Amino acid sequence: MIIDGRKIRDEIKEQLKEKIKNLHKDLRLAIVLVGENLVSLKFVEEKKKFGLEIGVDTRVYKFDEAISTTALRDKLAEITRIKQNTGIIIQLPLPPQINVQYILNSVPPEKDIDVLSARALGDFYVGRSPVLPPVVGAVKIILDKIFGDAITENLTNKNVVIVGAGRLVGKPLAVWFINKQTTVSVLNKNTADISKFTRDADILISGIGALKFIKANMVKEGAIVIDCGTSVEKTEVGEKYSGDVDFDEVQKKASHITPVPGGVGPITVAMLFKNLVEIAKIK
Amino acid sequence: MIIDGRKIRDEIKEQLKEKIKNLHKDLRLAIVLVGENLVSLKFVEEKKKFGLEIGVDTRVYKFDEAISTTALRDKLAEITRIKQNTGIIIQLPLPPQINVQYILNSVPPEKDIDVLSARALGDFYVGRSPVLPPVVGAVKIILDKIFGDAITENLTNKNVVIVGAGRLVGKPLAVWFINKQTTVSVLNKNTADISKFTRDADILISGIGALKFIKANMVKEGAIVIDCGTSVEKTEVGEKYSGDVDFDEVQKKASHITPVPGGVGPITVAMLFKNLVEIAKIK
Repeated sequence: MIIDGRKIRDEIKEQLKEKIKNLHKDLRLAIVLVGENLVSLKFVEEKKKFGLEIGVDTRVYKFDEAISTTALRDKLAEITRIKQNTGIIIQLPLPPQINVQYILNSVPPEKDIDVLSARALGDFYVGRSPVLPPVVGAVKIILDKIFGDAITENLTNKNVVIVGAGRLVGKPLAVWFINKQTTVSVLNKNTADISKFTRDADILISGIGALKFIKANMVKEGAIVIDCGTSVEKTEVGEKYSGDVDFDEVQKKASHITPVPGGVGPITVAMLFKNLVEIAKIK
Repeated sequence: MIIDGRKIRDEIKEQLKEKIKNLHKDLRLAIVLVGENLVSLKFVEEKKKFGLEIGVDTRVYKFDEAISTTALRDKLAEITRIKQNTGIIIQLPLPPQINVQYILNSVPPEKDIDVLSARALGDFYVGRSPVLPPVVGAVKIILDKIFGDAITENLTNKNVVIVGAGRLVGKPLAVWFINKQTTVSVLNKNTADISKFTRDADILISGIGALKFIKANMVKEGAIVIDCGTSVEKTEVGEKYSGDVDFDEVQKKASHITPVPGGVGPITVAMLFKNLVEIAKIK
Protein backbone atom coordinates (compact mmCIF):
# COMPACT_ATOMS: atom_id res chain seq x y z
CA MET A 1 0.00 0.00 0.00
CA ILE A 2 1.37 3.36 -1.02
CA ILE A 3 1.02 6.04 1.64
CA ASP A 4 -0.34 9.18 -0.02
CA GLY A 5 1.52 11.98 1.73
CA ARG A 6 -0.26 14.71 -0.20
CA LYS A 7 -3.65 13.38 0.90
CA ILE A 8 -2.53 13.30 4.55
CA ARG A 9 -1.10 16.80 4.17
CA ASP A 10 -4.42 18.01 2.80
CA GLU A 11 -6.31 16.48 5.72
CA ILE A 12 -4.02 18.28 8.16
CA LYS A 13 -4.42 21.44 6.10
CA GLU A 14 -8.19 21.39 6.57
CA GLN A 15 -7.83 20.82 10.32
CA LEU A 16 -5.37 23.69 10.58
CA LYS A 17 -7.65 26.07 8.66
CA GLU A 18 -10.35 25.41 11.25
CA LYS A 19 -7.99 25.82 14.19
CA ILE A 20 -6.57 29.05 12.83
CA LYS A 21 -10.04 30.45 12.27
CA ASN A 22 -10.86 29.80 15.94
CA LEU A 23 -7.56 31.22 17.18
CA HIS A 24 -8.33 34.80 16.11
CA LYS A 25 -4.62 35.60 15.91
CA ASP A 26 -2.39 36.67 13.05
CA LEU A 27 0.24 33.97 12.58
CA ARG A 28 3.51 34.44 10.77
CA LEU A 29 6.24 31.97 9.92
CA ALA A 30 9.70 33.51 9.58
CA ILE A 31 12.05 31.50 7.36
CA VAL A 32 15.75 32.29 7.55
CA LEU A 33 17.42 31.34 4.29
CA VAL A 34 21.17 31.59 3.69
CA GLY A 35 22.43 31.24 0.12
CA GLU A 36 20.62 29.68 -2.80
CA ASN A 37 20.69 25.89 -2.35
CA LEU A 38 18.21 24.51 -4.90
CA VAL A 39 16.59 21.90 -2.64
CA SER A 40 16.27 24.56 0.08
CA LEU A 41 14.55 26.95 -2.31
CA LYS A 42 12.11 24.18 -3.30
CA PHE A 43 11.26 23.52 0.37
CA VAL A 44 10.86 27.23 1.11
CA GLU A 45 8.45 27.54 -1.81
CA GLU A 46 6.40 24.61 -0.50
CA LYS A 47 6.21 26.17 2.96
CA LYS A 48 5.17 29.56 1.56
CA LYS A 49 2.46 27.91 -0.50
CA PHE A 50 1.13 25.87 2.42
CA GLY A 51 1.13 28.94 4.67
CA LEU A 52 -0.80 30.95 2.07
CA GLU A 53 -3.43 28.22 1.80
CA ILE A 54 -4.14 28.08 5.53
CA GLY A 55 -3.92 31.80 6.16
CA VAL A 56 -0.47 32.00 7.72
CA ASP A 57 1.77 34.79 6.56
CA THR A 58 5.26 33.66 5.62
CA ARG A 59 8.24 35.95 5.62
CA VAL A 60 11.59 34.86 4.16
CA TYR A 61 14.70 36.55 5.54
CA LYS A 62 17.42 36.02 2.93
CA PHE A 63 21.12 36.30 3.69
CA ASP A 64 24.23 36.06 1.58
CA GLU A 65 25.99 32.69 1.26
CA ALA A 66 29.15 34.28 2.73
CA ILE A 67 27.57 35.63 5.96
CA SER A 68 29.54 34.94 9.16
CA THR A 69 28.17 33.09 12.18
CA THR A 70 28.33 36.27 14.27
CA ALA A 71 26.52 38.38 11.70
CA LEU A 72 23.84 35.72 11.25
CA ARG A 73 23.39 35.39 15.01
CA ASP A 74 22.94 39.16 15.29
CA LYS A 75 20.36 39.13 12.50
CA LEU A 76 18.54 36.27 14.23
CA ALA A 77 18.41 38.20 17.47
CA GLU A 78 16.55 40.94 15.55
CA ILE A 79 14.22 38.46 13.83
CA THR A 80 13.30 36.70 17.08
CA ARG A 81 12.51 40.01 18.76
CA ILE A 82 9.86 40.81 16.14
CA LYS A 83 6.58 39.98 17.83
CA GLN A 84 4.77 39.25 14.57
CA ASN A 85 7.05 36.26 13.93
CA THR A 86 5.07 33.50 15.66
CA GLY A 87 7.49 30.78 14.64
CA ILE A 88 11.02 30.90 13.25
CA ILE A 89 12.82 28.28 11.20
CA ILE A 90 16.31 28.25 9.80
CA GLN A 91 16.36 26.49 6.47
CA LEU A 92 19.11 23.86 6.44
CA PRO A 93 21.75 23.21 5.23
CA LEU A 94 23.75 26.30 6.20
CA PRO A 95 27.05 27.13 4.47
CA PRO A 96 30.19 25.45 5.87
CA GLN A 97 31.56 28.53 7.64
CA ILE A 98 28.51 28.64 9.95
CA ASN A 99 28.46 27.10 13.43
CA VAL A 100 25.11 25.44 12.82
CA GLN A 101 24.08 24.47 16.36
CA TYR A 102 25.03 27.88 17.73
CA ILE A 103 22.74 29.47 15.15
CA LEU A 104 19.92 26.99 15.81
CA ASN A 105 20.19 27.71 19.54
CA SER A 106 19.38 31.35 18.94
CA VAL A 107 15.76 30.46 18.19
CA PRO A 108 13.90 30.70 21.52
CA PRO A 109 11.96 27.53 22.44
CA GLU A 110 8.59 29.30 22.28
CA LYS A 111 9.22 30.05 18.58
CA ASP A 112 11.23 26.94 17.70
CA ILE A 113 8.70 24.98 15.63
CA ASP A 114 11.46 22.92 13.95
CA VAL A 115 12.62 21.70 17.41
CA LEU A 116 16.30 22.17 16.56
CA SER A 117 17.60 24.36 19.41
CA ALA A 118 19.24 22.62 22.37
CA ARG A 119 16.47 23.95 24.64
CA ALA A 120 13.64 22.53 22.53
CA LEU A 121 15.54 19.29 21.97
CA GLY A 122 16.07 18.86 25.72
CA ASP A 123 12.31 19.03 26.26
CA PHE A 124 11.81 16.62 23.38
CA TYR A 125 14.43 14.20 24.76
CA VAL A 126 12.71 14.00 28.13
CA GLY A 127 9.30 13.62 26.47
CA ARG A 128 7.96 17.01 27.58
CA SER A 129 8.03 19.02 24.36
CA PRO A 130 4.69 20.57 23.36
CA VAL A 131 5.55 19.82 19.71
CA LEU A 132 7.50 17.10 17.89
CA PRO A 133 10.29 17.66 15.37
CA PRO A 134 8.33 17.88 12.08
CA VAL A 135 9.77 14.69 10.53
CA VAL A 136 9.01 12.80 13.76
CA GLY A 137 5.48 14.19 13.65
CA ALA A 138 5.16 13.04 10.03
CA VAL A 139 6.37 9.51 10.81
CA LYS A 140 4.04 9.38 13.81
CA ILE A 141 1.04 10.32 11.66
CA ILE A 142 1.97 7.68 9.09
CA LEU A 143 2.20 5.03 11.83
CA ASP A 144 -1.07 6.29 13.37
CA LYS A 145 -2.76 5.77 9.99
CA ILE A 146 -1.39 2.22 9.75
CA PHE A 147 -1.90 1.07 13.35
CA GLY A 148 -4.86 3.19 14.43
CA ASP A 149 -5.51 3.46 18.14
CA ALA A 150 -3.27 0.49 18.88
CA ILE A 151 -0.11 2.38 17.94
CA THR A 152 1.64 2.08 21.30
CA GLU A 153 1.14 -1.67 21.59
CA ASN A 154 2.06 -2.08 17.96
CA LEU A 155 5.30 -0.15 18.32
CA THR A 156 6.59 -1.98 21.36
CA ASN A 157 6.73 -5.31 19.56
CA LYS A 158 8.26 -3.97 16.35
CA ASN A 159 11.86 -3.92 15.26
CA VAL A 160 12.66 -0.46 13.90
CA VAL A 161 15.75 0.22 11.81
CA ILE A 162 16.78 3.77 10.95
CA VAL A 163 19.33 4.35 8.20
CA GLY A 164 21.13 7.62 8.88
CA ALA A 165 21.63 9.45 12.17
CA GLY A 166 21.29 13.03 11.01
CA ARG A 167 19.93 16.07 12.80
CA LEU A 168 16.62 16.22 10.94
CA VAL A 169 15.64 12.57 10.58
CA GLY A 170 17.59 9.73 12.17
CA LYS A 171 18.59 11.20 15.50
CA PRO A 172 15.25 12.65 16.62
CA LEU A 173 13.42 9.57 15.37
CA ALA A 174 15.77 7.33 17.34
CA VAL A 175 15.03 9.25 20.53
CA TRP A 176 11.29 9.20 19.86
CA PHE A 177 11.28 5.41 19.36
CA ILE A 178 13.43 4.94 22.48
CA ASN A 179 10.87 7.01 24.41
CA LYS A 180 8.16 4.73 22.99
CA GLN A 181 10.01 1.65 24.32
CA THR A 182 10.49 0.37 20.78
CA THR A 183 13.47 -1.73 19.73
CA VAL A 184 15.49 0.53 17.45
CA SER A 185 18.78 0.27 15.57
CA VAL A 186 20.47 3.35 14.16
CA LEU A 187 22.82 2.81 11.23
CA ASN A 188 25.08 5.18 9.36
CA LYS A 189 27.64 5.30 6.59
CA ASN A 190 30.16 3.43 8.78
CA THR A 191 27.88 0.45 9.41
CA ALA A 192 29.62 -2.65 8.05
CA ASP A 193 26.58 -4.65 6.92
CA ILE A 194 23.54 -2.42 6.55
CA SER A 195 21.46 -5.15 4.87
CA LYS A 196 21.83 -7.46 7.83
CA PHE A 197 19.91 -4.94 9.93
CA THR A 198 17.44 -3.72 7.32
CA ARG A 199 16.38 -7.24 6.32
CA ASP A 200 15.05 -7.77 9.87
CA ALA A 201 13.21 -4.43 10.11
CA ASP A 202 9.45 -4.41 10.64
CA ILE A 203 9.65 -0.65 10.18
CA LEU A 204 12.47 0.65 8.00
CA ILE A 205 13.14 4.38 7.88
CA SER A 206 15.78 6.00 5.75
CA GLY A 207 17.07 9.55 5.89
CA ILE A 208 20.45 9.74 4.22
CA GLY A 209 19.81 11.47 0.89
CA ALA A 210 21.42 8.69 -1.16
CA LEU A 211 19.50 8.01 -4.36
CA LYS A 212 17.76 4.61 -4.45
CA PHE A 213 20.15 3.19 -1.85
CA ILE A 214 17.58 0.82 -0.31
CA LYS A 215 17.02 -2.09 -2.70
CA ALA A 216 14.37 -4.81 -2.51
CA ASN A 217 16.86 -7.43 -1.28
CA MET A 218 17.52 -5.23 1.77
CA VAL A 219 13.85 -5.23 2.82
CA LYS A 220 11.80 -7.81 4.68
CA GLU A 221 8.58 -9.03 3.07
CA GLY A 222 5.69 -7.05 4.57
CA ALA A 223 7.82 -4.30 6.11
CA ILE A 224 6.68 -0.71 6.53
CA VAL A 225 9.13 1.44 4.55
CA ILE A 226 9.30 5.16 5.25
CA ASP A 227 11.55 7.21 3.00
CA CYS A 228 12.71 10.53 4.43
CA GLY A 229 15.45 11.14 1.84
CA THR A 230 15.37 13.59 -1.02
CA SER A 231 17.89 13.55 -3.85
CA VAL A 232 17.94 15.03 -7.31
CA GLU A 233 17.79 12.31 -9.94
CA LYS A 234 18.96 13.02 -13.47
CA THR A 235 16.76 11.30 -16.05
CA GLU A 236 16.60 11.39 -19.86
CA VAL A 237 13.86 13.98 -19.70
CA GLY A 238 15.51 16.22 -17.09
CA GLU A 239 15.88 16.26 -13.34
CA LYS A 240 13.42 14.98 -10.76
CA TYR A 241 13.33 14.37 -7.01
CA SER A 242 13.72 10.84 -5.70
CA GLY A 243 14.26 9.19 -2.35
CA ASP A 244 16.62 6.81 -0.56
CA VAL A 245 14.44 3.85 -1.48
CA ASP A 246 14.33 2.18 -4.89
CA PHE A 247 10.57 2.59 -4.92
CA ASP A 248 9.66 0.48 -7.97
CA GLU A 249 11.46 -2.58 -6.58
CA VAL A 250 10.71 -2.16 -2.90
CA GLN A 251 6.98 -1.45 -3.21
CA LYS A 252 6.49 -5.09 -4.28
CA LYS A 253 7.76 -6.30 -0.89
CA ALA A 254 6.61 -3.59 1.52
CA SER A 255 3.22 -3.72 3.21
CA HIS A 256 3.25 0.09 3.31
CA ILE A 257 5.64 2.45 1.58
CA THR A 258 6.01 6.22 1.19
CA PRO A 259 6.98 7.55 -2.24
CA VAL A 260 9.32 10.46 -2.96
CA PRO A 261 8.02 12.95 -3.88
CA GLY A 262 4.57 12.83 -2.32
CA GLY A 263 5.32 10.92 0.87
CA VAL A 264 7.00 12.16 4.03
CA GLY A 265 7.88 15.57 2.55
CA PRO A 266 4.39 17.08 2.22
CA ILE A 267 3.37 15.73 5.66
CA THR A 268 6.49 17.27 7.20
CA VAL A 269 5.53 20.69 5.83
CA ALA A 270 2.04 20.28 7.31
CA MET A 271 3.49 19.21 10.69
CA LEU A 272 5.66 22.33 10.75
CA PHE A 273 2.55 24.48 10.48
CA LYS A 274 0.74 22.28 12.98
CA ASN A 275 3.58 23.10 15.39
CA LEU A 276 3.17 26.79 14.61
CA VAL A 277 -0.52 26.62 15.50
CA GLU A 278 0.14 24.57 18.66
CA ILE A 279 2.72 27.08 19.83
CA ALA A 280 0.43 30.01 19.06
CA LYS A 281 -2.29 28.36 21.15
CA ILE A 282 0.04 28.09 24.17
CA LYS A 283 1.14 31.73 24.03
CA MET B 1 40.39 -9.15 30.69
CA ILE B 2 38.53 -7.86 33.71
CA ILE B 3 38.22 -4.07 33.86
CA ASP B 4 39.14 -2.94 37.36
CA GLY B 5 36.69 -0.14 38.03
CA ARG B 6 38.11 0.62 41.47
CA LYS B 7 41.59 1.11 40.00
CA ILE B 8 40.24 3.49 37.36
CA ARG B 9 38.26 5.32 40.04
CA ASP B 10 41.42 5.71 42.11
CA GLU B 11 43.32 7.12 39.13
CA ILE B 12 40.58 9.69 38.58
CA LYS B 13 40.60 10.39 42.32
CA GLU B 14 44.28 11.33 42.24
CA GLN B 15 43.75 13.60 39.22
CA LEU B 16 40.83 15.30 40.93
CA LYS B 17 42.79 15.89 44.13
CA GLU B 18 45.39 17.77 42.07
CA LYS B 19 42.77 19.76 40.18
CA ILE B 20 40.90 20.71 43.33
CA LYS B 21 44.12 21.83 44.99
CA ASN B 22 44.76 24.18 42.06
CA LEU B 23 41.21 25.47 42.00
CA HIS B 24 41.41 27.23 45.37
CA LYS B 25 37.64 26.97 45.80
CA ASP B 26 35.49 25.25 48.37
CA LEU B 27 33.39 22.66 46.57
CA ARG B 28 30.23 21.11 47.88
CA LEU B 29 28.03 18.37 46.50
CA ALA B 30 24.39 18.56 47.56
CA ILE B 31 22.60 15.22 47.47
CA VAL B 32 18.82 15.24 47.62
CA LEU B 33 17.56 11.98 49.06
CA VAL B 34 13.90 11.08 49.37
CA GLY B 35 12.97 8.06 51.48
CA GLU B 36 15.24 5.20 52.48
CA ASN B 37 15.78 2.98 49.43
CA LEU B 38 18.64 0.62 50.36
CA VAL B 39 20.51 0.80 47.04
CA SER B 40 20.17 4.60 47.12
CA LEU B 41 21.63 4.74 50.63
CA LYS B 42 24.58 2.62 49.49
CA PHE B 43 25.26 4.96 46.56
CA VAL B 44 24.95 8.04 48.76
CA GLU B 45 27.49 6.55 51.18
CA GLU B 46 29.91 5.90 48.31
CA LYS B 47 29.56 9.46 47.10
CA LYS B 48 30.11 10.91 50.57
CA LYS B 49 33.22 8.76 51.00
CA PHE B 50 34.65 9.74 47.62
CA GLY B 51 33.97 13.42 48.30
CA LEU B 52 35.70 13.23 51.66
CA GLU B 53 38.78 11.64 50.09
CA ILE B 54 39.23 14.37 47.48
CA GLY B 55 38.32 17.28 49.71
CA VAL B 56 34.78 17.94 48.51
CA ASP B 57 32.19 18.59 51.17
CA THR B 58 29.01 16.56 50.74
CA ARG B 59 25.69 17.58 52.15
CA VAL B 60 22.71 15.25 52.13
CA TYR B 61 19.25 16.83 52.16
CA LYS B 62 16.86 14.13 53.35
CA PHE B 63 13.13 14.22 52.77
CA ASP B 64 10.29 12.01 53.81
CA GLU B 65 9.15 9.23 51.47
CA ALA B 66 5.68 10.82 51.36
CA ILE B 67 6.76 14.32 50.24
CA SER B 68 4.70 15.84 47.40
CA THR B 69 6.14 17.02 44.08
CA THR B 70 5.28 20.63 44.93
CA ALA B 71 6.90 20.49 48.37
CA LEU B 72 10.02 18.85 46.95
CA ARG B 73 10.25 21.41 44.17
CA ASP B 74 10.02 24.22 46.74
CA LYS B 75 12.76 22.61 48.82
CA LEU B 76 14.90 22.26 45.71
CA ALA B 77 14.46 25.93 44.89
CA GLU B 78 15.97 26.69 48.31
CA ILE B 79 18.79 24.19 47.88
CA THR B 80 19.77 25.50 44.44
CA ARG B 81 19.87 29.07 45.74
CA ILE B 82 22.52 28.17 48.32
CA LYS B 83 25.77 29.40 46.81
CA GLN B 84 27.90 26.85 48.67
CA ASN B 85 26.20 24.00 46.77
CA THR B 86 28.50 23.74 43.74
CA GLY B 87 26.67 20.78 42.29
CA ILE B 88 23.29 19.25 43.06
CA ILE B 89 22.11 15.71 42.45
CA ILE B 90 18.79 14.07 43.11
CA GLN B 91 19.28 10.47 44.12
CA LEU B 92 17.04 8.22 42.03
CA PRO B 93 14.65 6.48 42.21
CA LEU B 94 12.08 8.89 43.61
CA PRO B 95 8.81 7.63 45.15
CA PRO B 96 5.92 6.99 42.73
CA GLN B 97 3.92 10.12 43.65
CA ILE B 98 6.73 12.37 42.39
CA ASN B 99 6.78 13.88 38.87
CA VAL B 100 10.41 12.89 38.35
CA GLN B 101 11.35 14.97 35.29
CA TYR B 102 9.73 18.09 36.75
CA ILE B 103 11.88 17.67 39.84
CA LEU B 104 15.03 16.96 37.81
CA ASN B 105 14.36 20.10 35.75
CA SER B 106 14.59 22.23 38.86
CA VAL B 107 18.35 21.73 39.00
CA PRO B 108 19.89 24.62 37.03
CA PRO B 109 22.27 23.48 34.25
CA GLU B 110 25.30 25.12 35.89
CA LYS B 111 24.83 22.84 38.94
CA ASP B 112 23.43 19.79 37.12
CA ILE B 113 26.40 17.40 37.31
CA ASP B 114 24.18 14.34 36.77
CA VAL B 115 22.98 15.82 33.43
CA LEU B 116 19.35 14.91 34.08
CA SER B 117 17.49 18.21 33.60
CA ALA B 118 15.96 18.91 30.19
CA ARG B 119 18.30 21.91 29.79
CA ALA B 120 21.46 19.92 30.43
CA LEU B 121 20.20 17.01 28.32
CA GLY B 122 19.48 19.35 25.41
CA ASP B 123 23.10 20.49 25.44
CA PHE B 124 24.21 16.87 25.70
CA TYR B 125 21.93 15.81 22.82
CA VAL B 126 23.44 18.41 20.48
CA GLY B 127 26.97 17.53 21.61
CA ARG B 128 27.63 20.84 23.38
CA SER B 129 27.45 19.85 27.05
CA PRO B 130 30.54 20.73 29.12
CA VAL B 131 30.08 17.43 31.02
CA LEU B 132 28.77 13.97 30.15
CA PRO B 133 26.11 12.05 32.09
CA PRO B 134 28.24 10.14 34.66
CA VAL B 135 27.48 6.65 33.31
CA VAL B 136 28.33 7.85 29.79
CA GLY B 137 31.57 9.30 31.15
CA ALA B 138 32.33 5.97 32.81
CA VAL B 139 31.69 3.97 29.64
CA LYS B 140 33.79 6.45 27.66
CA ILE B 141 36.73 6.02 30.04
CA ILE B 142 36.46 2.24 29.83
CA LEU B 143 36.50 2.41 26.01
CA ASP B 144 39.37 4.92 26.12
CA LYS B 145 41.37 2.42 28.19
CA ILE B 146 40.64 -0.35 25.68
CA PHE B 147 41.09 1.56 22.42
CA GLY B 148 43.54 4.27 23.44
CA ASP B 149 43.88 7.26 21.11
CA ALA B 150 42.12 5.43 18.30
CA ILE B 151 38.76 5.44 20.07
CA THR B 152 36.86 7.39 17.42
CA GLU B 153 37.95 5.16 14.55
CA ASN B 154 37.39 2.10 16.69
CA LEU B 155 33.87 3.09 17.59
CA THR B 156 32.70 3.87 14.06
CA ASN B 157 33.24 0.29 12.90
CA LYS B 158 31.76 -1.39 15.96
CA ASN B 159 28.30 -2.76 16.49
CA VAL B 160 27.02 -1.55 19.85
CA VAL B 161 24.02 -3.14 21.53
CA ILE B 162 22.45 -1.56 24.61
CA VAL B 163 20.04 -3.60 26.72
CA GLY B 164 17.68 -1.21 28.49
CA ALA B 165 16.63 2.31 27.51
CA GLY B 166 16.44 3.94 30.92
CA ARG B 167 17.11 7.50 31.96
CA LEU B 168 20.47 6.80 33.63
CA VAL B 169 22.09 4.26 31.31
CA GLY B 170 20.54 3.17 28.02
CA LYS B 171 19.06 6.39 26.70
CA PRO B 172 22.00 8.76 27.25
CA LEU B 173 24.44 6.09 26.02
CA ALA B 174 22.37 5.61 22.86
CA VAL B 175 22.53 9.34 22.11
CA TRP B 176 26.27 9.44 22.82
CA PHE B 177 26.96 6.56 20.43
CA ILE B 178 24.69 8.13 17.78
CA ASN B 179 26.71 11.34 18.14
CA LYS B 180 29.89 9.27 17.68
CA GLN B 181 28.48 7.83 14.42
CA THR B 182 28.49 4.34 15.88
CA THR B 183 26.01 1.67 14.86
CA VAL B 184 23.81 1.19 17.90
CA SER B 185 20.75 -0.90 18.77
CA VAL B 186 18.67 -0.16 21.83
CA LEU B 187 16.68 -3.04 23.28
CA ASN B 188 14.18 -3.17 26.12
CA LYS B 189 11.85 -5.53 27.90
CA ASN B 190 9.56 -5.66 24.87
CA THR B 191 12.26 -6.82 22.46
CA ALA B 192 11.17 -10.17 21.03
CA ASP B 193 14.57 -11.81 20.58
CA ILE B 194 17.22 -10.05 22.66
CA SER B 195 19.85 -12.75 22.01
CA LYS B 196 19.67 -12.20 18.28
CA PHE B 197 20.96 -8.67 18.81
CA THR B 198 23.37 -9.31 21.67
CA ARG B 199 25.10 -12.21 19.89
CA ASP B 200 26.22 -9.78 17.17
CA ALA B 201 27.42 -7.06 19.56
CA ASP B 202 31.07 -6.01 19.49
CA ILE B 203 30.28 -3.86 22.50
CA LEU B 204 27.44 -5.06 24.72
CA ILE B 205 26.15 -2.74 27.43
CA SER B 206 23.43 -3.66 29.87
CA GLY B 207 21.55 -1.40 32.25
CA ILE B 208 18.30 -3.06 33.28
CA GLY B 209 18.89 -4.20 36.86
CA ALA B 210 17.95 -7.82 36.15
CA LEU B 211 20.16 -10.25 38.00
CA LYS B 212 22.48 -12.30 35.72
CA PHE B 213 20.19 -11.77 32.74
CA ILE B 214 23.00 -11.82 30.17
CA LYS B 215 24.23 -15.40 29.75
CA ALA B 216 27.29 -16.66 27.87
CA ASN B 217 25.20 -17.93 24.94
CA MET B 218 23.96 -14.37 24.39
CA VAL B 219 27.47 -12.97 23.94
CA LYS B 220 29.79 -13.00 20.95
CA GLU B 221 33.29 -14.44 21.42
CA GLY B 222 35.67 -11.54 22.04
CA ALA B 223 33.00 -8.94 22.80
CA ILE B 224 33.47 -6.03 25.18
CA VAL B 225 30.84 -6.44 27.90
CA ILE B 226 29.97 -3.47 30.10
CA ASP B 227 27.57 -4.12 32.96
CA CYS B 228 25.76 -1.05 34.28
CA GLY B 229 23.16 -2.97 36.28
CA THR B 230 23.02 -3.39 40.03
CA SER B 231 20.76 -5.89 41.76
CA VAL B 232 20.71 -7.40 45.20
CA GLU B 233 21.51 -11.10 45.05
CA LYS B 234 20.49 -13.37 47.91
CA THR B 235 23.11 -16.01 48.61
CA GLU B 236 23.52 -18.67 51.30
CA VAL B 237 25.78 -16.35 53.27
CA GLY B 238 23.58 -13.26 52.97
CA GLU B 239 22.95 -10.57 50.37
CA LYS B 240 25.41 -9.17 47.86
CA TYR B 241 25.32 -6.83 44.86
CA SER B 242 25.46 -8.34 41.41
CA GLY B 243 24.98 -7.13 37.86
CA ASP B 244 22.93 -7.82 34.73
CA VAL B 245 25.66 -10.10 33.40
CA ASP B 246 26.28 -13.65 34.55
CA PHE B 247 29.91 -12.75 35.16
CA ASP B 248 31.39 -16.21 35.77
CA GLU B 249 30.06 -17.58 32.48
CA VAL B 250 30.45 -14.49 30.32
CA GLN B 251 34.00 -13.63 31.32
CA LYS B 252 35.21 -16.72 29.48
CA LYS B 253 33.93 -15.33 26.18
CA ALA B 254 34.39 -11.57 26.55
CA SER B 255 37.63 -9.85 25.55
CA HIS B 256 36.92 -7.23 28.23
CA ILE B 257 34.31 -7.30 30.95
CA THR B 258 33.32 -5.13 33.91
CA PRO B 259 32.40 -6.89 37.16
CA VAL B 260 29.63 -5.86 39.58
CA PRO B 261 30.54 -4.63 42.09
CA GLY B 262 33.86 -3.00 41.21
CA GLY B 263 33.21 -2.10 37.58
CA VAL B 264 31.12 0.73 36.16
CA GLY B 265 29.77 1.80 39.59
CA PRO B 266 32.95 3.18 41.16
CA ILE B 267 33.95 4.91 37.91
CA THR B 268 30.50 6.53 37.71
CA VAL B 269 30.97 7.98 41.20
CA ALA B 270 34.35 9.37 40.14
CA MET B 271 32.87 10.87 36.95
CA LEU B 272 30.19 12.62 38.99
CA PHE B 273 32.90 14.40 40.96
CA LYS B 274 34.88 15.04 37.79
CA ASN B 275 31.76 16.86 36.52
CA LEU B 276 31.60 18.83 39.75
CA VAL B 277 35.18 19.99 39.29
CA GLU B 278 34.66 20.79 35.59
CA ILE B 279 31.61 22.86 36.39
CA ALA B 280 33.41 24.67 39.23
CA LYS B 281 36.22 25.53 36.79
CA ILE B 282 33.76 27.13 34.36
CA LYS B 283 32.08 29.28 37.01
